[in-house]
Amino acid sequence: MRMYDIIKKKRDGGELSTEEIKYFVQGVTDGSIPDYQTSALCMAIYFKGMSVRETCDFTFAVRDSGDKLNFSEINGIRVDKHSTGGVGDKTSLVVAPVVASFGVKVAKMSGRGLGHTGGTIDKLEAITGFNTTLSDADFIKQVNDLGFAIVGQSRQFAPADKKLYALRDVTATVDSMPLIAASIMGKKLAADDDCIVLDVKTGSGSFMKTVNDSKALAKLMVDIGKSAGKKMVALITNMDRPLGYAIGNALEVIEAVETLNGHGPEDFTEVCMTLAGHMLSLAGKGTVKDCIKMARGAIADGSALAKFKETVKAQGGDVKLIEDVNNFEKSKHTYEVKSVKRGYICKMDTEAYGLASLALGAGRNTIEDKIDYSAGIILKKKTGDSVEEGEVIATLYSNNESAFEKAAQMLIDATEIQKKKPKEEPLVYCTVE
Amino acid sequence: MRMYDIIKKKRDGGELSTEEIKYFVQGVTDGSIPDYQTSALCMAIYFKGMSVRETCDFTFAVRDSGDKLNFSEINGIRVDKHSTGGVGDKTSLVVAPVVASFGVKVAKMSGRGLGHTGGTIDKLEAITGFNTTLSDADFIKQVNDLGFAIVGQSRQFAPADKKLYALRDVTATVDSMPLIAASIMGKKLAADDDCIVLDVKTGSGSFMKTVNDSKALAKLMVDIGKSAGKKMVALITNMDRPLGYAIGNALEVIEAVETLNGHGPEDFTEVCMTLAGHMLSLAGKGTVKDCIKMARGAIADGSALAKFKETVKAQGGDVKLIEDVNNFEKSKHTYEVKSVKRGYICKMDTEAYGLASLALGAGRNTIEDKIDYSAGIILKKKTGDSVEEGEVIATLYSNNESAFEKAAQMLIDATEIQKKKPKEEPLVYCTVE
Repeated sequence: MRMYDIIKKKRDGGELSTEEIKYFVQGVTDGSIPDYQTSALCMAIYFKGMSVRETCDFTFAVRDSGDKLNFSEINGIRVDKHSTGGVGDKTSLVVAPVVASFGVKVAKMSGRGLGHTGGTIDKLEAITGFNTTLSDADFIKQVNDLGFAIVGQSRQFAPADKKLYALRDVTATVDSMPLIAASIMGKKLAADDDCIVLDVKTGSGSFMKTVNDSKALAKLMVDIGKSAGKKMVALITNMDRPLGYAIGNALEVIEAVETLNGHGPEDFTEVCMTLAGHMLSLAGKGTVKDCIKMARGAIADGSALAKFKETVKAQGGDVKLIEDVNNFEKSKHTYEVKSVKRGYICKMDTEAYGLASLALGAGRNTIEDKIDYSAGIILKKKTGDSVEEGEVIATLYSNNESAFEKAAQMLIDATEIQKKKPKEEPLVYCTVE
Repeated sequence: MRMYDIIKKKRDGGELSTEEIKYFVQGVTDGSIPDYQTSALCMAIYFKGMSVRETCDFTFAVRDSGDKLNFSEINGIRVDKHSTGGVGDKTSLVVAPVVASFGVKVAKMSGRGLGHTGGTIDKLEAITGFNTTLSDADFIKQVNDLGFAIVGQSRQFAPADKKLYALRDVTATVDSMPLIAASIMGKKLAADDDCIVLDVKTGSGSFMKTVNDSKALAKLMVDIGKSAGKKMVALITNMDRPLGYAIGNALEVIEAVETLNGHGPEDFTEVCMTLAGHMLSLAGKGTVKDCIKMARGAIADGSALAKFKETVKAQGGDVKLIEDVNNFEKSKHTYEVKSVKRGYICKMDTEAYGLASLALGAGRNTIEDKIDYSAGIILKKKTGDSVEEGEVIATLYSNNESAFEKAAQMLIDATEIQKKKPKEEPLVYCTVE
């Protein structure tokens, strides 16, 4: 087999065989295929696409390029949720304890943030003492005991994806549906879950800018998961504005705890309950409608909050922070961003909000950057709200006062204000099965 | 300027600016742009093409990436001919002396063979003593004195093309019209000619397999040349069969000398006279029709042969070989290839004939290979001829007897014999101006 022939076949619109795809992914992983051939193939795939069969083979080859988990010692049904990444997306902190409170197992492996999107592991590390590196045995024991445990990705999952992504990122071949699907699902399938709920973000803060593209990506990922024997469902959710009002690590944990207390923002609560409902339903706990009701019940009766506290305690975190969020360390400085005109907020460039939070110290530009856990943004106004000239639209938090001016300007530039109230858009566009 | 943005722009169908193209070619030349970005851009160009303006800019950037010649000290009009490469193509050996015999200057820079096509410099080196490396001063003096001199490409012409071609060759991005045109013309324009006649081969032995593709490529190259201020014309000629009957270095020189003597094969003579006529006409010697007549006259009256002898002598070659081609050293072994069936030859895979000659020792697989000058093929039959079962269709020549069996089988496989006589095809399809 020759890489040249594989590139030519795809260039000419051919369908690659399972063996050809394995040969390619194996060669990327072991370094035997030079980068210039890999990038040429990625560009050919960008133009010629891949069939569902090719995309599945590609995903499985990516999954098989590294470590895989074995959850066979976990008793009960294992459900996971995966988000394609957004700004202010702290849903995992709410849906996992809700779902676990019904005895469904959530053995969660999460990432760190890079660029404009945050990472769940960083958010949890805002809780003093929270340990995100457990041994396999401790991880499985905690899932069996409590129903929920969460760790960072310490293993070498899907190294082929890591190499491919780095190359795609510098050769303008990221925006390819099959390559995106294989990248996400290749990593996801390296874990050993029974059911997966995908939260596919759409809009200004996400990969996919239109609902139709998001639906196509969701359908492809659902098909890949099913062909790997998983129960799958995907929700297309709105990322044309940040989710909730808090962006930044400690700020988001606080908002999640408030939501578990029943006082969360309406939009964020609704997305969490819908996701949790689908997770419970996939796990066989009833219809989606009934399961969403059950999820709301777990908030109302405090069982979800209790589960979260148990988990924080089990992983060494300071429970006092959860019991009273006023105990979280505050940033040294705050800054109020004021509207420069009057009208309705009709558009928020969500990605720019994420980048502003990054500029305040809440994220990483490079893997080596240190995070300021107290930094971030609390929105006062979101799309659809009316604002007066000079009215505060957001409060910035940072230990680095010099970052405020730039971040404030970013928010002002990213917020479009018009005279007319904009049409309301759904939070959850649809479900893809 | 960032290479990423250039790739993305082309990927999305945009037209690259002159500055962007210069940045890219400069970066390829100095190595600052990594190969994986170059190959991704080549693949995007493969799919999205280039406008004539982009292709011209690209060609000029390739030309400007290395040395350029200055022929200002040559008196008179300088005309060159460039062939896109074929099998048995020894036209330069005939047309250059014909044209020079009329006082038009031919300052020729030629290449060596690689793969299935031969190179004029290798052919000339089959003439004992022929020196293909002259100093600039000697080269220009000889052109001024005799009208014709020929040297190998010792300078660093268009190094960007060398790097690009090596990369395109392993990433399935060779077959792109603008990239082919820029590669050929980028090198050609580094010389300092007034007029260029392009011989664009079409058919089984060439880059372009159809007449329409060849016409498109020819038109593009003619436009590029004109926008660089050259007088241009292109002929589309048939390479569905080898040109003439001889393939291999000494064998081709012998056929060229016989043609200069007026005893050459009909097809080869016709192509040579047509090319020489166009060269003379571009140089202002009259209409194409008149100039073709003049070219035939230079054969008939011996002036073209005399010019070739003068040139061989001036460059140190053994003139006795030209005076009597029986003086060329013969290969130690010969082998007759016999037809396995009766009928008409209706198709010859010309490239396979070139590869068979290579297998006999007449060419190079890699740049380091040494050439057996006496090796090659003399065809006895070509497309359109009738053959009996067991009749000789070709004689093989080599100093390596063990190569015969494989080469003979290659010829038999490459020669399609049918009951019906095939339709005759033109030798010169058309002219593109």
